[in-house]
Amino acid sequence: MATNENPTTSEDGDVLDQLHSARESIDNIDAALVHLLAERFKFTQQVGRLKAKHGLPPADPARESEQIQRLRALAAESHLDPAFAEKFLTFIIAEVIHHHERIAGSAGSASAGSGSVGAPSDS
Amino acid sequence: MATNENPTTSEDGDVLDQLHSARESIDNIDAALVHLLAERFKFTQQVGRLKAKHGLPPADPARESEQIQRLRALAAESHLDPAFAEKFLTFIIAEVIHHHERIAGSAGSASAGSGSVGAPSDS
Repeated sequence: MATNENPTTSEDGDVLDQLHSARESIDNIDAALVHLLAERFKFTQQVGRLKAKHGLPPADPARESEQIQRLRALAAESHLDPAFAEKFLTFIIAEVIHHHERIAGSAGSASAGSGSVGAPSDS
Repeated sequence: MATNENPTTSEDGDVLDQLHSARESIDNIDAALVHLLAERFKFTQQVGRLKAKHGLPPADPARESEQIQRLRALAAESHLDPAFAEKFLTFIIAEVIHHHERIAGSAGSASAGSGSVGAPSDS
């Protein structure tokens, strides 16, 4: 609470308590988000390895379109802006592609079943 | 599975089953992410309303810096790229600011305790 270090009334104290409580919740949610994202990338890497091993194409526009529509609908249900949900998925997909490119650039094509994080990846 | 619609061997069927299972997990994680993001924005809006009502400044660079360092550490623990975690937080903060600007532009300054999503918002 850098802006109000010496509350002099009980109301000030209440406000700081409420701010602190909300920020604790934000921090808890952020921790959950980071751990879920880590788990999500494990699955996209698994899909990438499967596709590489079995000669399936890395990109699947139909799948991606379904994901976008589904996330937009889930966002609307939870009162989140559907446009933001779509931007969010696009942001994540860009990172999946970045993983792929970064490793492909340093190691050439990924060998089948190598466990490389650079295998072509589903979004 | 647009690229392999008629598997002719049991191995093909196994691969499709594994792909399907991984994609189901990705979809479950995405649903959880959307719902957590919706909840996170509720808290940032609550913080924004508190700050507006009590005359606290909307931005808090020290708090933001702490959030970034904490998320980078959590990312490292869960084998997620810390640079990605920081980009992710920056992406979310941009949306919080966007909420604020969008509503401020259409409704002028938010009145105290109005429940507006356009109140100045913590990140």
